[in-house]
Amino acid sequence: MKLNIAVLGGDGIGPEVLAQAVKCLLAVEENFGHQFTFTEGLIGAAAMDQTGNPLPDATIELCKSSDAILFGAIGTPKYDNDPNAKIRPEDGLLYLRKELDLFTNIRPVKVFPALINNSPIKRSVITGTDLVIYRELTSGIYFGEKSLSADGTVATDLCRYTEEEISRVAHMAFKAAKKRKGKLTLVDKAHVLETSRLWRRVVAEVAESYPEVELTNMYIDNAAILMTLKPTSFDVILADNMFGDILSAQCNVLIGSSGLLPSASVGTNYAMFEPIHGSYPQAKGKDIANPIAAILSAALLLNHFGLKEEFNAVVAAVHKSFRKKIVTMDIMGSTKYGTSSVGDFISKNIVDVDDNLNI
Amino acid sequence: MKLNIAVLGGDGIGPEVLAQAVKCLLAVEENFGHQFTFTEGLIGAAAMDQTGNPLPDATIELCKSSDAILFGAIGTPKYDNDPNAKIRPEDGLLYLRKELDLFTNIRPVKVFPALINNSPIKRSVITGTDLVIYRELTSGIYFGEKSLSADGTVATDLCRYTEEEISRVAHMAFKAAKKRKGKLTLVDKAHVLETSRLWRRVVAEVAESYPEVELTNMYIDNAAILMTLKPTSFDVILADNMFGDILSAQCNVLIGSSGLLPSASVGTNYAMFEPIHGSYPQAKGKDIANPIAAILSAALLLNHFGLKEEFNAVVAAVHKSFRKKIVTMDIMGSTKYGTSSVGDFISKNIVDVDDNLNI
Ligand SMILES: CC(C)[C@H](C(=O)O)[C@@H](O)C(=O)O
Ligand SMILES: CC(C)[C@H](C(=O)O)[C@@H](O)C(=O)O
Repeated sequence: MKLNIAVLGGDGIGPEVLAQAVKCLLAVEENFGHQFTFTEGLIGAAAMDQTGNPLPDATIELCKSSDAILFGAIGTPKYDNDPNAKIRPEDGLLYLRKELDLFTNIRPVKVFPALINNSPIKRSVITGTDLVIYRELTSGIYFGEKSLSADGTVATDLCRYTEEEISRVAHMAFKAAKKRKGKLTLVDKAHVLETSRLWRRVVAEVAESYPEVELTNMYIDNAAILMTLKPTSFDVILADNMFGDILSAQCNVLIGSSGLLPSASVGTNYAMFEPIHGSYPQAKGKDIANPIAAILSAALLLNHFGLKEEFNAVVAAVHKSFRKKIVTMDIMGSTKYGTSSVGDFISKNIVDVDDNLNI
Repeated sequence: MKLNIAVLGGDGIGPEVLAQAVKCLLAVEENFGHQFTFTEGLIGAAAMDQTGNPLPDATIELCKSSDAILFGAIGTPKYDNDPNAKIRPEDGLLYLRKELDLFTNIRPVKVFPALINNSPIKRSVITGTDLVIYRELTSGIYFGEKSLSADGTVATDLCRYTEEEISRVAHMAFKAAKKRKGKLTLVDKAHVLETSRLWRRVVAEVAESYPEVELTNMYIDNAAILMTLKPTSFDVILADNMFGDILSAQCNVLIGSSGLLPSASVGTNYAMFEPIHGSYPQAKGKDIANPIAAILSAALLLNHFGLKEEFNAVVAAVHKSFRKKIVTMDIMGSTKYGTSSVGDFISKNIVDVDDNLNI
């Protein structure tokens, strides 16, 4: 298969973890006989420093002319805490999601057996956790109108959802549930928010087309409790932009490190693959960041194009790195292996097997 | 001391857990020579059923003429999932908070040594957890303008904050931090939300009056991670209405049951004391609900009026119930003791000691 892949490293550890993802894709290319082309683009603080714009037009064009996008991370302390800034690194990511209409963010969470003792949560509680969050990604309060009064004393953010925005991501989530354990949990705050009530109504309607899927409504407070208390009770979680963001952050904890969870952001025409973790600026350039979330994001990219064996090969190599303890310090508590050594090990172990692994 | 206390049981398990709190206050009255008067008022679904209004005027008047309010819980399945409902049980609670201007919700979270194995989180992670959440309670997205388009396809919720709303709750939180470990964490989403940026600016200004308190800014995603990964790193958490709601739900998990955490909602003129848990309608009338959160809320009421010894006596009795395993099924995994037996045990053990206990 021929694939043009845009590589947007972004800020902090973004570029260095993506470099490992690219290494792994190169190994896949070689071992499975594909043809991948990688082109780098600027985004975030890195783009602001060079062009004044966190999402230069050239980057948008690159993404639109590529088959898929790999994205690293965004944000640096330099641009934080300036309440008067007109534009921020994060806007680059938000605009890109909007521009490419990447309305569904898919975040699979599965406990890695070899890492189970790494979790702050008891083994008995997390064993068997296998859920996926479908987070709406291009609307809600992150994209609603914002305002700050002229004297700077009153601020607003508008959370707005349309039936159409809800229904399209809901269909994605129901389709996934149908192929999985047939359970979908809609997380909201319907006793308080009007948008949540619209979500409930629309999702209930969409549910009628999926009679084999069991729909449960849950308030965000209860979901936040259950996510730690009984994560195995979830199959597919559907949530708006903000609730999905918070719940998936919580999932990082389940599996023992923030450096492990990948995600796919998909729309009708484009698809972007990005680790859930942040830009971790303190670790930048130190060769200590965990590249697994980025590598697994690359695996999701392969899966997106139907390259199931290739996906399995990457996942198998990641599991092997855990078993052999070729891991970064966030997992081992020592600096034994650097970002790049872990990437080397995994890429060298990507072989043509026919396992049926999942992440 | 003479105190007129309004008792608003509300829905589900609300009335039965509050009955135990009242039992304990009666024991305090007797053993410490006070004079407490209790008057019940209607709120929530119970009030809607009887008067059509989740917050009848009589209840508002009762609260305004009382020295303090005990509140149970709100919400029943009967009124859920009706997207066209004009008014909901929960509105009763929201209006009451607004009407009494209870702008600060204080949620102390301290692990109970006797219950530490009950938590889904490892002992080593939660041991020593002692934090308090200051949640803004009368503004933000829960109170902003809502809208639903005439054709029902577009919904909005407005999150709005003013400098004044932020600064008054911030002062409360800083004062608490000053008396505690001197650490305050402001939780927000400042890289995305305008209201969060206003919070950062105002809180940074308020911080100048408390040079002995160390202020940290943290994104809600990171806070949701840290709350499970390293809860001992927090001292005072300050958050807006929604983030504070979600974070305190997460805290329920830390200590092993949702039935344990009390809260105080205070304003300039009024104070209300309420368990953090919900109305748990499935348990209503079954004598299985955990009354501890309600009893500890009564303890916070005593503390609010400077009755420190009385507060300690209630807390000591609660600890004793844990040590003697006189607890409800959510803790023991059996129905050995009912709601009312636990209330009996604790109230009988409220004695005039001079411990220096804290919850
Ligand atoms: C950087 C930020 C805007 C982003 C978000 O909240 O969407 C990130 O936290 C994420 O979860 O992808
Ligand atoms: C019932 C609901 C409106 C309420 C809230 O979210 O404020 C409750 O969850 C709480 O936390 O006190």
